[in-house]
Amino acid sequence: MERRVNARPRLVVVGGDAAGMSAASQARRARGGEDLEILAFERGRHTSYSACGIPYLVGGTVANPDDLVARDPATFARDFDIEVRTGTEVTAVDLERRCVTARGPDGTVATERYDQLMIATGAVPLRPELPGADAEGVFGVQTLDDGIALRAFLDDARPETAVVVGAGYIGLEMAEALVQRGVRVDLVDAGPEPMGTLDPDMGAEVREALVGMGVRVRLGERVTGLRTEGGRVRGVATDRGEYPAGVVVLGMGVRPNSDLARAAGLRIGPTGGIAVDARMRASAPGVYAAGDCVETFHRVSREPVAIALGTHANKQGRVAGTNIGGGYARFGGVLGTAITKVCGLEVARTGLNEAEAERAGFAFTTSVLRSTTRAGYYPGAKWMTVKLLAERRTGRLLGGQIVGWENAGKRIDVLATALWNGMAVEDVAGMDLGYAPPFSPVWDPVLIAARKLAEAAPEPRAG
Amino acid sequence: MERRVNARPRLVVVGGDAAGMSAASQARRARGGEDLEILAFERGRHTSYSACGIPYLVGGTVANPDDLVARDPATFARDFDIEVRTGTEVTAVDLERRCVTARGPDGTVATERYDQLMIATGAVPLRPELPGADAEGVFGVQTLDDGIALRAFLDDARPETAVVVGAGYIGLEMAEALVQRGVRVDLVDAGPEPMGTLDPDMGAEVREALVGMGVRVRLGERVTGLRTEGGRVRGVATDRGEYPAGVVVLGMGVRPNSDLARAAGLRIGPTGGIAVDARMRASAPGVYAAGDCVETFHRVSREPVAIALGTHANKQGRVAGTNIGGGYARFGGVLGTAITKVCGLEVARTGLNEAEAERAGFAFTTSVLRSTTRAGYYPGAKWMTVKLLAERRTGRLLGGQIVGWENAGKRIDVLATALWNGMAVEDVAGMDLGYAPPFSPVWDPVLIAARKLAEAAPEPRAG
Repeated sequence: MERRVNARPRLVVVGGDAAGMSAASQARRARGGEDLEILAFERGRHTSYSACGIPYLVGGTVANPDDLVARDPATFARDFDIEVRTGTEVTAVDLERRCVTARGPDGTVATERYDQLMIATGAVPLRPELPGADAEGVFGVQTLDDGIALRAFLDDARPETAVVVGAGYIGLEMAEALVQRGVRVDLVDAGPEPMGTLDPDMGAEVREALVGMGVRVRLGERVTGLRTEGGRVRGVATDRGEYPAGVVVLGMGVRPNSDLARAAGLRIGPTGGIAVDARMRASAPGVYAAGDCVETFHRVSREPVAIALGTHANKQGRVAGTNIGGGYARFGGVLGTAITKVCGLEVARTGLNEAEAERAGFAFTTSVLRSTTRAGYYPGAKWMTVKLLAERRTGRLLGGQIVGWENAGKRIDVLATALWNGMAVEDVAGMDLGYAPPFSPVWDPVLIAARKLAEAAPEPRAG
Repeated sequence: MERRVNARPRLVVVGGDAAGMSAASQARRARGGEDLEILAFERGRHTSYSACGIPYLVGGTVANPDDLVARDPATFARDFDIEVRTGTEVTAVDLERRCVTARGPDGTVATERYDQLMIATGAVPLRPELPGADAEGVFGVQTLDDGIALRAFLDDARPETAVVVGAGYIGLEMAEALVQRGVRVDLVDAGPEPMGTLDPDMGAEVREALVGMGVRVRLGERVTGLRTEGGRVRGVATDRGEYPAGVVVLGMGVRPNSDLARAAGLRIGPTGGIAVDARMRASAPGVYAAGDCVETFHRVSREPVAIALGTHANKQGRVAGTNIGGGYARFGGVLGTAITKVCGLEVARTGLNEAEAERAGFAFTTSVLRSTTRAGYYPGAKWMTVKLLAERRTGRLLGGQIVGWENAGKRIDVLATALWNGMAVEDVAGMDLGYAPPFSPVWDPVLIAARKLAEAAPEPRAG
């Protein structure tokens, strides 16, 4: 391809959400408009929105879809000199000729050259092949448009019953949203307890809370099909029963949307995500990738993982943008930290759970501790449970899980920071954390859990 | 001194609060009653109480003084086979002969041998030589008995006005307690802003909140004397004015109560605290010390500090007890982490503030960041301010301060954990912390503050 002599170098961004637009903005901070042209393609209608906010939009906690949009295309054009073409899907990448093929909202197809390419194509929801899955009233909650459509359906059809399929983060948050709207909810999951990223003993505490708020929790059940009438969903059949459903929400997780990258010939990792290095460089010169479509390094297991979370997308996008702009930045990897809240119950995890630690080949011990969120005598103290895993020989912390009320959850950040630094539980137990009676017992629950685990191994004796 | 042939080894504990009784309990866990006799002396009436809870007792948040007592002497006797003699003051220690002299409640003096000695004599409140300081209605809040006496006075005398002298943690908490009781409060401090352990720019935010809740904050004023009438306090005079006071609370900090140790010939450090090693061993064989009476190692400044906090007393006491019992434990030092809450405003700090960093000889940069406690679009998001200090050349985090609402404060633990591990702010910025819209913005405020500080130094460039 002939290069125009006076053309500015051009960054093409595929995907206008968190990762793509973080990269674009960050590249712009380093390189002015005279120095770098930035052109972004977004298949949907919205840019840079908080996908994590969708359940709160559906539940009515957040009033307006626009509230979830951090920056719209007009803002990118005006404040960042970034052109965003929405409704435009990139259908092919030619790594040799350094160009992309894009199909616009009117069906016209254009070829656009790039000097640097940022792939941020996000994730694809996992959808089993279910009879009836195309019926009216069946929703995913992957994109902002999904959320808007679901909310409009709830407003119009006013279903009295709902089935949420999948009891992970999204499933729980959607169950909460529906309960808040007065809908009777059956939550169906194939696993033994909700929140499969927790160990079952911790998931059981989540189940109890869900039941307490009126959710019917159907565990160990596989969805076999959707019952429809006149093209509209009426119920969900599982291998154990059938539940009425005026609306069905599918929240069964996602996989990296790496199809475009694979077709282009970029290297795809064992998790199905685009393989990138710590600078977010994919396997071809000038090509970067970030967000839900990539796989990344897990700092504890040291294995590649694909974890679809806005917080990684933002950080990785920023790293990519710094490097695209000629700077130097590396993404430090992930710990699998996650947090959510279901009607007041806070649920958080970081690092490896038991199944993950086993898979990664660790010999480990665990401790489970129940304590209070405040000094026991301070009014309003609530229960919280902390579970920790440590490597057997070294005492190194491998993971933590927290389930509890009022401010229990964000304590996961202490464990995440400890994990980030490869701390042993004995050292965690000694740390100087903030204490005052309204905030914690004099030994913060995470410290007691660490101490308990450290003491499970006989301590060395000295004179 | 002749040793009885069949006597069990004896641990004598001087001081029956957090440090002393943690040590005693921990020693007992390692050594049964047949193996080790434990005898504790406590000058006051109570053992193992939460001194940090006293303001909440005075304010009425905690109803009953007994709620603050974790274990009373009867419990120690019954469950731990530990004899506690309350109302009994140890007046001398003879390191050569390994015995202590103790004066009981009836004035009788006894000499008791020890094999191991645990000194946990706590702290002495700083009290300026003020005319009128002996008047009725003037209170410290150092011991549980102080708190009980103050509450009784407030219940009986029902003063309409109060002056709190000292705007540190205790002063603020006492101001809150008095405001909650409907008392009009003048808070007097010689410093430029309240909370002298924060930098003044952060202290200013605390001042604004105090003023907002109706406290009259009198800064840069030195108390010159107390006005009394008939032996009862009526007002507080400063170098700038006089304020009416039906009650006066003195909260001007404390110093290590190391007089007994000094008189015995134990080494006292430059801060005035008893010098101990990481195993909490004082400078004579078989003698341990812990809690407010010792000085300890600051992990950032690497200098000895004396910081009177229950959380250290508990940890240090436990370390001492493990070692006394024949085990092996080391205290990892402190970071100066502290947290409090004034009518909903949360205030926390860790590491070094600007003045401390200067004294310790660091060249440093700072960042101050205002962000929200939740995703901006999530209802109820509140403001919080994070200030960070980093070493100029290395980017190493030196300290952090947080002022803000609802769950802002305990984020200090992330910074404390980062400091504990000697992290650079650039690495802090990349950490995988928990994110969901009800808990934080997608970049947690502590991460943004770290990023801002990391970027203040020009980043290295690479191709």
